[in-house]
Order: sequence, then C-alpha cells, then structure tokens
Amino acid sequence: MARTDLDALALNALTLEQKASLLSGRDFWTTKPLDEAAIPSITLCDGPHGVRREAGGSDHLGINESIPATCFPPAAAVGSSWDPEVAARIGAAVGREGRALGVAVVLGPGVNIKRSPLCGRNFEYYSEDPLLSGVLAAAHVAALQAEGPGASVKHFAANNQETERMRVSAEVDERTLREIYFPAFERVVTQARPATVMCSYNRVNGVHASQNRWLLTDVLRREWGFNGVVVSDWGAVQDRVAALAAGLDLEMPRTGGASDRRIVDAVRAGDLDEATVNASVRRVVALTERHSGVSGAFDSDAHHALARELAAECAVLLKNEDGTLPLSAEARIAVIGEFAARPRFQGGGSSHVHATRVDAALDAIRALAPDVAYAPGFSLDGSGDARELREAAAEAAASADVAVVFAGLSEREESEGFDRETIDLPAVQIELIRAVAAATRRTVVVLSNGGVVSLEGWHDDVDAVLEGWLLGQAGGSAVADLLFGAVNPSGRLAESIPVRLKDTPSYLNFPGEAGQVRYGEGVMVGYRYYETVELPVRYPFGHGLSYTTFAIDGLRVVRTGDDRATVTMRVTNTGDRAGKHVVQVYVSTAAGPVRRPVRELRAFRKVSLAPGESRTVTLPLDRRAFAYYDVPLGRWTVAPGDYTIQIGENASSVVAETTIGLGGDSVVPVVSLDSTLGEWLSHPLAGPALLRVLSGGKSRRTEEDDENGLRMASSMPMGRFLTFAGIDIPHATLRELVELGGSDGAAA
Amino acid sequence: MARTDLDALALNALTLEQKASLLSGRDFWTTKPLDEAAIPSITLCDGPHGVRREAGGSDHLGINESIPATCFPPAAAVGSSWDPEVAARIGAAVGREGRALGVAVVLGPGVNIKRSPLCGRNFEYYSEDPLLSGVLAAAHVAALQAEGPGASVKHFAANNQETERMRVSAEVDERTLREIYFPAFERVVTQARPATVMCSYNRVNGVHASQNRWLLTDVLRREWGFNGVVVSDWGAVQDRVAALAAGLDLEMPRTGGASDRRIVDAVRAGDLDEATVNASVRRVVALTERHSGVSGAFDSDAHHALARELAAECAVLLKNEDGTLPLSAEARIAVIGEFAARPRFQGGGSSHVHATRVDAALDAIRALAPDVAYAPGFSLDGSGDARELREAAAEAAASADVAVVFAGLSEREESEGFDRETIDLPAVQIELIRAVAAATRRTVVVLSNGGVVSLEGWHDDVDAVLEGWLLGQAGGSAVADLLFGAVNPSGRLAESIPVRLKDTPSYLNFPGEAGQVRYGEGVMVGYRYYETVELPVRYPFGHGLSYTTFAIDGLRVVRTGDDRATVTMRVTNTGDRAGKHVVQVYVSTAAGPVRRPVRELRAFRKVSLAPGESRTVTLPLDRRAFAYYDVPLGRWTVAPGDYTIQIGENASSVVAETTIGLGGDSVVPVVSLDSTLGEWLSHPLAGPALLRVLSGGKSRRTEEDDENGLRMASSMPMGRFLTFAGIDIPHATLRELVELGGSDGAAA
Repeated sequence: MARTDLDALALNALTLEQKASLLSGRDFWTTKPLDEAAIPSITLCDGPHGVRREAGGSDHLGINESIPATCFPPAAAVGSSWDPEVAARIGAAVGREGRALGVAVVLGPGVNIKRSPLCGRNFEYYSEDPLLSGVLAAAHVAALQAEGPGASVKHFAANNQETERMRVSAEVDERTLREIYFPAFERVVTQARPATVMCSYNRVNGVHASQNRWLLTDVLRREWGFNGVVVSDWGAVQDRVAALAAGLDLEMPRTGGASDRRIVDAVRAGDLDEATVNASVRRVVALTERHSGVSGAFDSDAHHALARELAAECAVLLKNEDGTLPLSAEARIAVIGEFAARPRFQGGGSSHVHATRVDAALDAIRALAPDVAYAPGFSLDGSGDARELREAAAEAAASADVAVVFAGLSEREESEGFDRETIDLPAVQIELIRAVAAATRRTVVVLSNGGVVSLEGWHDDVDAVLEGWLLGQAGGSAVADLLFGAVNPSGRLAESIPVRLKDTPSYLNFPGEAGQVRYGEGVMVGYRYYETVELPVRYPFGHGLSYTTFAIDGLRVVRTGDDRATVTMRVTNTGDRAGKHVVQVYVSTAAGPVRRPVRELRAFRKVSLAPGESRTVTLPLDRRAFAYYDVPLGRWTVAPGDYTIQIGENASSVVAETTIGLGGDSVVPVVSLDSTLGEWLSHPLAGPALLRVLSGGKSRRTEEDDENGLRMASSMPMGRFLTFAGIDIPHATLRELVELGGSDGAAA
Repeated sequence: MARTDLDALALNALTLEQKASLLSGRDFWTTKPLDEAAIPSITLCDGPHGVRREAGGSDHLGINESIPATCFPPAAAVGSSWDPEVAARIGAAVGREGRALGVAVVLGPGVNIKRSPLCGRNFEYYSEDPLLSGVLAAAHVAALQAEGPGASVKHFAANNQETERMRVSAEVDERTLREIYFPAFERVVTQARPATVMCSYNRVNGVHASQNRWLLTDVLRREWGFNGVVVSDWGAVQDRVAALAAGLDLEMPRTGGASDRRIVDAVRAGDLDEATVNASVRRVVALTERHSGVSGAFDSDAHHALARELAAECAVLLKNEDGTLPLSAEARIAVIGEFAARPRFQGGGSSHVHATRVDAALDAIRALAPDVAYAPGFSLDGSGDARELREAAAEAAASADVAVVFAGLSEREESEGFDRETIDLPAVQIELIRAVAAATRRTVVVLSNGGVVSLEGWHDDVDAVLEGWLLGQAGGSAVADLLFGAVNPSGRLAESIPVRLKDTPSYLNFPGEAGQVRYGEGVMVGYRYYETVELPVRYPFGHGLSYTTFAIDGLRVVRTGDDRATVTMRVTNTGDRAGKHVVQVYVSTAAGPVRRPVRELRAFRKVSLAPGESRTVTLPLDRRAFAYYDVPLGRWTVAPGDYTIQIGENASSVVAETTIGLGGDSVVPVVSLDSTLGEWLSHPLAGPALLRVLSGGKSRRTEEDDENGLRMASSMPMGRFLTFAGIDIPHATLRELVELGGSDGAAA
C-alpha cells in the first residue's frame, strides 16, 4: 500500500543505504521498492506517441516485443498540426493507455529543437521553433498527466543529434540556449508541471547534462521552479555522485548496486551532503506516491479512430496544381509505391510502439474508390529488379487518370541512434516518381518520412505533394481521407524544407568533430536563418495548403504596456469548403544590442471556419514575444524601440503587418573609465558633456580630423583614449563626467 | 654607445627597478635608455607599406604629421600580386627608409586573416588565405630586416575586426586557430625570424592576447621557436604583471612609471619570478643592440618609380569584355570620378604615410593620351549637386569612345578603428556608373578600395573592371600603365568578391555581441566556405585576367613520401603579349576525422612568360599541404587516404587534377570499454573479433534486427552497450577483446 504523505516519511528512520537504493532503477523499467517504508516500485516506459510497455525482459535496443498499444502520430507530425488540441488529445489517450498498462511515467515528449534535418531522431521532435514545440508539448503533458501517469519532458538539453550522443559536447552560447534550446522545456515546466524531466546523454559546454548543476538546479529548479524528479536518460549517468550533487535524482536503469555504494561512500567520506540525498529521496518518493497504483482500461477501437482523426490534422499539403486534389472517387487511380501497402508510420528506436493494428493507405483508398490499380514501384527490402518494378508502375500509371506515388524513407534510412548523411529520397524512388509523372496526366506524391527530405529532382514534375511525415497506425486511412477530401488538409510545416542540405544553417557544424559540436549558427536556426540571410527554401516554415482559401484583414495591434501588446485580426474562409487556417504572428525588430532573426514566431492559433465564415482572432503578445536574453545582464530584456508585428502566410510571406513602438525595459546605461569612447558618446548625459570638454580643448585639429579620430578611437576604453590622445582633462572635470555617466566617481 | 654583447650584461648589477624600467616605453615611440648600462633608446614606428615616423609629439590617432616617406601599396594590394618578390621589394625599400629615418623597428606587416569583408583594417591585411598571407609576409619581413631595422609581425592573434577591438573575445576553436589564423604568423616566425611579434588588443577565448600564455609562450616560443621580443599593440596591456608572466616583453607606449612599479612590487611580493623579468630584459636589450644606431639615406625618386612598378603588379583585371582594355592612346577618353584627380591610395589609421609625392591617374592618363576629357561625376566631400555632377559626367562620356570611371571608398567609409556595415559602393557612385554606361559605348570602372566592395547593381552594365585596391602613392601612374597596356595586368584576387554581404561566412557572427565574437564558420573562411557549400560568388579567390592567355598541361604529381609530393606542370603563354600567370595548386580531400574545406591553396608561383613561351613549374607539397590539426592528438596529422591535387584557374575553377593515395601518419587506433561500439566495430582487429563473439551469442534475433540495433547503439560506449543489450561476455573473452583493441587489459 502506497504512502500518502511525503512529509510524514521518517527520513531519519531510513538508513543511508536504504535512501541511496531509492535513487536508481531496480531493472530496466522499474524503480526499487522499499517495503519497510511502504514505498512501492513504479514502472516507467517509453513514449510519447504510444505506450511501449515491454512484455519480456529488459532491452533498450528496440528489439523486445512490447504489449500492443495505439500508435498515434509521432511528434514530427503533431508539430505540423500547429494545434495544441491535437497534442492534448494524443497526450490524454496515451495517458489512458499508460494507466491501463500500469505505467506510472510515460517518457516524453521530446522537445529538442530540429537543428539539422539530419538528426536521426527528428521524427520524435516537434519543430525547429521553440514556441511551437513548447505549446504542443505543454498541451501533451498536461493532458497526459490529467489521466494519471506522469510525463518526462526530454532530453534536457541541447541534444540535437545522435552522432556521438553519449560523449559529444554541444558548444552553444547562453543566449542561444535561452532563446532557442530552452524555451520549450521552460514552457512545459512552468505551465504543465511535468512529473519528471529527463536529462540528455550529451555534454553541454563540456559538462555532461547529467552532471550539469547549472542546467539541472540553477535553471531548471531555481529559475523555472521545477519541483519534480530529474531522471537520467537511460545510461546517461557518468559519475553518480557528481550527478546527484548537480540535481539528478533518479538514475535509470539498474546499476546493480554500484551507484548505491558510490552514494553511500561519498556521504561517509564527506564528499556529498546527506541533505542532497534526502532531497532527491523526497522527490522520488513523492513521484512513486503520486503515480503508483495506476490501472484502468482503454478502448482500442476508439483510440484507433482517434488516431485516424488526428493524423489527418497533421499532414501538410505542400503543392496542389490545378486542383489535382482532392481526388474524385470516380477517377481511375494508380496507387504506386510499396509504402501504400506496407506503411511506414513511426520511427525506430525507443519510441517504437507495438501497434494494435495498422491501416494501409492502399486498403483505405480501395474502400473509397472502385477503380484502383496498384504497383509497388520499388521494394523496401531491395529485392526484385528496380527497372522492372519502375516500368510496371509507369505502365499502371499510363492507364490511370491520376497516379498517387507513396514515397519516403525506411527505418534503414532514419532512426534513433544515428544521423542521416543526406536528405535525398533514395535514388530508386526519385527515378520512379519521374517515370510515373512522365507516363500519366496527373501525379500526386505522398511522403512518409520522419525527417525532412529534399524535393529536388522531382518536385516540378508532379502536380501535388502531400507531406505525411509519420502518421501513426491509422495514417493510411487518414491519407485516404485527405486525398479524397473527406478531410480538408490543415497542416503547416513545423520545419523548413531547404533546397539543398548545403543550405542548412548547421551544415558546416553538424555533427561536429573531436568530441565537440559548435552551434555556430547561434540563434539562427531554421527559418530564422533562411529569412535573415534571404536564402530561398523549397517550402518555408509555416507553409501548408488547403482545399479552401482564407483571407486576413483588419489587423490591429494595441500596446498593453511598455513590453506587451495584443493583436487582433479577422480571418475569413473565402472558399467553398470548411477548413482550418493557422494564424501565424511573427515579430520583427532590430531593437537592442544583439543580432535578431529577421522575424520570429510569437503566437499562433488554428481556426476552423465554415465556407464564408469570418472570425475575429485575438492573441496576446507578452513580454517574451519582444524580449531577447541579455547575457551580461543575466535576464530577459525588452529593448526600447520599434517592433513590427507581422501576420505570415508562412515564415517567408507576410500578408499584413503593423509597427508599434515599445518603451521596453528602462535600462540606464552606466559608463566608467573602462567604458569605450563609443559608449561615452552615446550616453545621454555624459556624451554631450564629454564632447563639450573635448571641443573646448581643441587647437590645431580640423573638424574632419576630429570625426575620423573619434570614430577610430570609439572602441578605446575612455581612460586609455585620454592618454593616447594626449588630452589632459582636469581632475574635477573628469570626476564630473564620470558622475554624469552614472558610475562611482571614485574611479576618477 | 651601444653595447654589443648581451650575455656580458651584468644583469645582477642592475637593480630590479632598472630592469623593470626597460620593459615599457619612454614615450609613444621610443624605449627607455639605461645609460649606466650603455643601453640605448630605440625608435619604433608604424609601417608596414611606408615609414610613419612622427615628426612632432606623440599621437597615436593618425593626426600628427609624419616625416615624408614613400607610400608603397598596402597589404590588400600586395596580396593580389601573389608574388613574394613584390612583398620583398617593398620590405627592402621600407627597410632602407626606416634606416635612413633612424627607426629600429618598423611595425608590421599585419597578417590577420580577412574573416569578414567588413573589417575596417582589411586594407592592411593580405588575404583570406593563410598560405598566401604567410608567404608574402615572410618575404616582406626577411627583406626589411636585411636592411637593418627589425619588423613586428602583427596582430597576434585572432584580431579580425575593429569593433570592440580592445575588449572583444574571439571565441574560436583550436583547429581553426591552427589551420586558419596562426599559419601566417607561424611561417613568418619560423622562416623570417622577425625581431618582434606584436600581440593584439582583443581577447582570445576569454584571455587578453597580451596576457595569453598559451599564445605568447607555449605556441609562439616553445612550438615555433620565437626568440625575439613580444611587444604589445599600443595600449593592449591590461595587467602588466600577468602580461609579463604570459610572455609579453615590451609594453608600449609609456605608462608613466606605473608599469615599472607594478613589476617591482609583484617581484617583491613573490607574485612574479624575477627570472621572468630577466628573460624579458635580455630580449629587449638584445633588440636594442641589434637595431640601434641605424642610419643612411634613400633615393625618393627611385622609390617612387619602384612604387609605380610594384603597384602595377597588384591591380586585378576582373572583367574585360571584347578587349575593351587595353585602351588605345588614340581613343577619345572620358575620365570620370573625383578619385582620378584626388586618388585614394592608402588606408586610414596608424599606417597612414606622409607620401613624398602622389600621382593622380588623370595626370598619368593625360600624359599618355592626347584626347582626354574629365568630369568629377561626384564629390568626395559631398559638396555640389549630385545630379548635376552625374549629368555632366554622362555628357562627357557620350562624346567619348570610352569612359573610365574611378569609383571607390573614401576614408570616411573605411579605416582602422571601425568596421564597415555594408560592402556597397556609395549609392551616388552606383548611379553615376550606370548613367555613364548608358551614355557611352564602352565603360571601364577602376576601383579604389581597401576592403571588398560589391559589384552588384552595375557590374553587368560595364565592359571592364580593374580592381586597384589601394595602390600607394604611385598608383595613379600604375593604373595608367595598365589601362594602356604598358604593363599587362597580373594580379589575382587574394579574397573572394561575394555576391551579397549576406553570403559571407561570418555574416551572422560579425562583429559579435555581449563582448564575444563567435567564429561560427570555423575553418570555412573565404573561398573555403563558398566552395564547400557551393555558393556562387561574383569573382572567386584567385581570379584575375590578363591581356594574354595561358594554358596548363602535363600535370604530374609524384609522391615523395607518405605525407608529401611534388607537383610538376607546363605553363604556356598562348597569347601574343608577354604576361604573368599565377599557378595555383589546391589540395582536396575527405580523408581524416574532421570536416575539410572542399579545397585549400597549398602552393603557388607567379610565372613570367614571353608570347608563346612555355615553362615547366615544379612545386613541392610538404606534409602541411596534406595535414589537418588534430586537437585530441595535439598535433598536425596526415590522415591516410586519397588526396586530389588540383590546378586552379582560381579557387572555383579547376583546370587539371590528379589524385594520389598517401599512407599518412600511422595512427594505431586504441579502443577500450569507454570507446563506442562504432569505434570497436571499425577497429581492424577488435571489430571482427567482437562481431564473432556477438553473433555467437545470438538467439532469437534476426539479421535485420541486429543491423538496426548495432547502428542505433554505435555511439554507445562499449561497456554500457553490453549492459544495455544484456550481453554477457565471459571475463576472459572480454579481456582478450580489450587486448586486441590495444588498450590496457586492466580495464576489463
């Protein structure tokens, strides 16, 4: 029977050995019970788009069979829904299934930012944008936890590649961490209060995440107020004592008692404060109390239907020339590509779910249309003659009105555990698409892929492209719903589709070398980069078509303070079908002393509209929508200045904008003799005074000499400048200047 | 009278105060004498393309008049000569002038790499390529020092911008320092033995260069064997005691005794070893002995003629449609642009020379052609009506056979002390060029600029472009020599001309923020970046046209060891004019564990050929031509593998290539239980053995499961992998495996 009151736990009654024993796994998936103290064992299991409760022994390599559960769309697809409701409904369903399967903590969601399209685990992550990632993940976590089990937001932090993931050090500056890699974690922690946070395998600026006190305690607990359990990624702990001191409570999986002994020895030797052990024990016990004893049931039919409904929200219609889609059920259709019959619907690795059933698109299409031919076109296992398969497919396409080619990546091409080296589709598929497109009147390509693939080499040959990502076990039916218009596509890209791998901002610095990966692009990740350097992409972040059309008008931005505003506009469905539009609000500014991306997503809302319907959408922009992280000041700062609020059709195409001035944070500049001449001259009080003093001492200098000299000297510290220029300012005058500059006159 | 034997100096006879006094300046330009020990004062002065010996008081802001001296082409122009002879003849002439003016040390040359075209001091640096920079600088230093004065190669290190130059920290990884920012210094130090090395203002990875022991002692003295004096850039010392301990001998300029006191106090307090003081004193005294008492005379007419000859070697003919150039002396010529009458021929700041005379291109053209009209076109000081000036110029152009427009940047646009914010020409000049081009049949543009300017907006409108950079006091005559074909252009770009500023590799990370500048592009500087990411430029590194044509044939590459080779080819002048070709040898490889630029310049030779003449050129490629710097190993390493030797018309256009295999350095890989599974599997002995053991233990796994599992686990440390996979290898077997892996069996 589980205890119910943590504070009543007589910690003093437990031996140090007993306490240490609570801080690592009993086996792969469960924690150690402590019967004497009525502390139960709880089960953690992989997630997050389905419960991977292993049936047999412990195995973290994705090989053991797990108990059947519903496989919902993975995060790459959910990201494209741009809809926290989609994330929440998945979270709730997974929560119900976890509870039914006796799982206390369902690991996930993963909110790492897609820094490079090559990252093998991108299918498990939402987006290249931290706001979109954070909003979706927070919705998932809150809904999942409302069903009983706890969540584990992961992998904290800067775990953006698989290559060398257990040793590589992410070399990334603090502003970039704060603005790009942290915000999704921060939002989940502060808004959804996850039961656990999982630290990542990698090092961050040289220090293992599992032993990084700044990450796990200073930022996570002190700044964000996290009071749950920090759990290690499986096997991420290098030095158990250092990790505990840094703030890592629960080490997983089992270590056969080795970690227990190290903790005990360190306390006895005086190297570790027993209070640190106690704090972690309290947190772990609280977790077991809150989440043990879960049980229940779930309706697998209902969840499969839900998986179908939600999958249709996630696919992105990239291209649709001349109304090629939706298809008519009367058309003669050639379905091509082995993915149509053997769908790829989830990623490989720890998140691999044993699906309760799987819908193939081919079956779903046949259920909707009478005249459907099928040709595999290529084989996933490499068997058969590629040319024969291609020619048979082209033949089938030739006698159809429209060919639908199912292309994509197999698990051989992408998975947890390794990164890709290319973003191209397999050559055999590109050849197939071109051959089919040449043989038939209309060609539609449906993509199944966890990470972005390039569309070069075939995009211009086809009439429509539906990016399905990985859509979960009911994805096949969902694709059919979209192709025939039973559902109107409403997905928007959560990541840019570049023209070339070589265009990607991390291209030169991925996956790093010599044990390090330099985040050389800083905050310029994804569309932030492409828009800032004006580099064309194939399809921008936020892009997605519909079978209807939308219009925005009446944009109004009202300041609601020196650092916040409210945006209002009207959205109208101008077409003749019901559909959903995603309102995307970006902010663009040059204010402040740091380089800003040309625009950043700061709010969004998915709106469902009947034909002809208009709705007014109001979105608040809080101070974080305008702030940058000021590293020297150690805080988020809103710089005074102009901010342009832009409504984007996507990140590249602004359809309405308006500019407001914000007073921002009142930062009074202080200058001293260590400040540069340039800083002095831009000081509102000290600058003009200094100029008066300098011009008073002028003799043989011309005005032009002065201007050039001052520009050249602008980076000189004031004290050195005076010496260099041979300018002798009386002590009293200098003291006055320094006082005007706001710093302690003593320096003068 | 100067002492002649340093070792005879009875250091013990000097007081600590006396010794300390020798380690900083007496005033701005001279060192302190010590009459009791017969140690003279010596004079240092700015260079390097002319002697800036100040006549009056001390002033470092470029305002004081200096004694007239010949202004030779600055480094930006010399870089484009691709000819160490040009650099050497300038060095020798400056050496003679320095000696004549009583200068012991002529500061310079500057060998900082052009990381961004925006750097305000690029006109003082040679190139974006370290080999080209180093070869030219070494020739300059050797020739200068042969005349008596010492040189001061500067600014060591990673001083690649003016913004915040006294405080900014260059955040740059060691491989990048070793491969890009150090080699020019290394070459000068090891091959030309400069009397002094000047430390830079900035910080390098957080530590002021002036206090950076790794830079000034470990790398400079221990690795490269430097035994001269390390002098501070003027005012670069922040903490005198820390600087001395780091290896900075001589602080400049004067500090009014403050530094002397700090040194004395630190020794007395036991914070500084007196042996450190003694070592620096010995070096400074040796410098004063070797370079004091210089005197002589120089022939200013001969040096002006030399300046004219050398300037013509530096200009780069970028474009020449339909043989527009050379001009016929009989043509009606409209000379346009105020630069023709008031030439810009050097940069602003400390290197500013008081020229003995200045040739204006307009005068030189009039001396060669009878029918020359002139219109200023625009005014450098902004006076006059821009439209009227432009229209008058267009009118003059309309009645000429050819218009020659002199465009460029004024010192208002670029100088030491600040960085540019754009690479565009002033808008008024772009409009002028377009108006002139529209009005006349043929248009030639001659550019005067220290840093790269964009050619966008007008390049396609004109027939020829001559990039003159800043050509020194005789540049006007040299340009006339080139325009009329008295000299055949032979310059080649020492830096890429990008299409857009936004294309430059440092664009996102220049000039940094919050006190730091991240070298996010790593080794991918200049053409290394453009070629690697296949980004088009307007004109590539190495580009330059001639009035004749050349051909390369008979390329042969002979291995001369496991890590070196010799390249031989025949160069033929296939045109009907004498001319000079620059043979450019690049090496391209994917060998080794680091990301290599797609090609790197590894050898070059400027060859003078009569019409129809052929010459065989042989260039050795030593191990550094193939090596990368391996940070974990701490040394230059030649990886075994294939290396393609490419002869480039420029960095972007390969005209001949051949591939050789090199054995490289024999690095025996060692794997332990901390090595990843991937490292194990690629080990020649341990890998196959491990696979045998693993497959022997196989039970229910399929081959495909194995493959995916192994790929996913490839980044796992071997020890953890065995635990995770639940693989139980007998202790003895494990020990055998570890021994096969080459590491100490004790770990098992």
